[in-house]
Amino acid sequence: MTRQQLVEQIKKKKSYLCVGLDTDITKIPAHLQSHPDAIFEFNKAIIDATKDLCVSYKINTAFYEAHGLKGWEAMQKTVEYIPEEIFTIADAKRGDIGNTSTQYAKAFFEALPFDSITVAPYMGEDSVAPFLEYKGKWAIVLGLTSNKGASDFELQKTGDAYLYEKVLSTVSKWGSPDNLMFVIGATQADEFTNIRKITPDHFYLVPGVGAQGGSLKDISEKAMNKDCGLLVNASRAVIYASGKEDFAEAARKVAQEYQQEMAGYLERLNN
Amino acid sequence: MTRQQLVEQIKKKKSYLCVGLDTDITKIPAHLQSHPDAIFEFNKAIIDATKDLCVSYKINTAFYEAHGLKGWEAMQKTVEYIPEEIFTIADAKRGDIGNTSTQYAKAFFEALPFDSITVAPYMGEDSVAPFLEYKGKWAIVLGLTSNKGASDFELQKTGDAYLYEKVLSTVSKWGSPDNLMFVIGATQADEFTNIRKITPDHFYLVPGVGAQGGSLKDISEKAMNKDCGLLVNASRAVIYASGKEDFAEAARKVAQEYQQEMAGYLERLNN
Repeated sequence: MTRQQLVEQIKKKKSYLCVGLDTDITKIPAHLQSHPDAIFEFNKAIIDATKDLCVSYKINTAFYEAHGLKGWEAMQKTVEYIPEEIFTIADAKRGDIGNTSTQYAKAFFEALPFDSITVAPYMGEDSVAPFLEYKGKWAIVLGLTSNKGASDFELQKTGDAYLYEKVLSTVSKWGSPDNLMFVIGATQADEFTNIRKITPDHFYLVPGVGAQGGSLKDISEKAMNKDCGLLVNASRAVIYASGKEDFAEAARKVAQEYQQEMAGYLERLNN
Repeated sequence: MTRQQLVEQIKKKKSYLCVGLDTDITKIPAHLQSHPDAIFEFNKAIIDATKDLCVSYKINTAFYEAHGLKGWEAMQKTVEYIPEEIFTIADAKRGDIGNTSTQYAKAFFEALPFDSITVAPYMGEDSVAPFLEYKGKWAIVLGLTSNKGASDFELQKTGDAYLYEKVLSTVSKWGSPDNLMFVIGATQADEFTNIRKITPDHFYLVPGVGAQGGSLKDISEKAMNKDCGLLVNASRAVIYASGKEDFAEAARKVAQEYQQEMAGYLERLNN
């Protein structure tokens, strides 16, 4: 998917919501747990209930790999089920030496039809470059993450800058705002103004709203750019909104609340 | 597998060779390519031909994921085929926020029977900790890698130390030499003496010998500790030693050359 297509979706739906399909079989409603294809059935219902409210789905590969072959199959069925106009993210945090990253790019961009993949920057340019060679596909590189461990290395100083700032300024030279995004955690709102100075034009994938405590208002006020420039992810807050048979309706309700709040911030952007 | 079991294997086989199963279907012999289970058949022959010469097999997950479901199945069959006394490494470079790393640990330590997994350190402690909670399992955290991109971040200064040195000194506090190893590229021989000062007791997984140009002699002289402390990986140099029907014998011959050279360095250690 091109940047232009993504921006058009955001304008059309008045939403920059990404729904995270971190589907944990122990947390899905009891009536589905015995279904032979429980994870996919759950995802399908969530997608059907939210697809007009979000512009992206993020599939966290760990939750699928935890079920081995069957999990990988559920992941494949899920990404294939997502409507084509919705931006798909393999939240896979991959990255290795060049010839290995090339194989990961094949895995997620050819064997599976994802639009994008999250990538860890530690190993440097040749670990990211292979993901940038596909037209219409995106690498979403870790910048400043939402978790406590962000302080261990990302927030260590390298010269005058934090490591994550060095990552943003360096990695942004390897691609363009048309094929590169960054992961910036919603819990890091204090840093957002500074982050926008380093990467004014890029989209950010922003996890950490909802269960992890980040504020949609803070992020939107501090980090929107002229094309919106944000995909704000909510996973657990949406997909586990109810643990009962009404889980899909409950997910829709929470997604709708996010979408309506987002519509307000987008409107201010246009005025 | 415990550290003691691994050290015993090294002494018994007079080897610290790890054979990397980075199996690329386009590089395996022509007579196997049309086999319905080509990747596993190739791996099986390589394992049969080398299992008395090496103490570890490293499965690079990217090469399997590139084939989707069928690839994941080949990975599972391969790791299950490896004899129990041989240390298995999922070279997967995973790492994410705590609740997600917990799922990756399930994937590789429960759904699949790996002894260890390689982990990227960028996201900090909660991204590594879940892998350290399994008795007899190991996290192998990226320290200083063998690729050109290592200079982008790993070799940037954070205060007085390089980032990779900060990673070694910080991460080594999260576990012990009994459940934590580090990846140190063989192409980084100049740094090995210094690295041993920071982490004297840990095992290192050392890729980069062979195709990437690192020297087994340099590494062994500079980085062995009293328990050996090294698993030196060769992938392409072993598994693609011949592209013809004699590929397994050819792989054995190269593995044997490594093993014999290693036996010499181990003998010096004991004298």
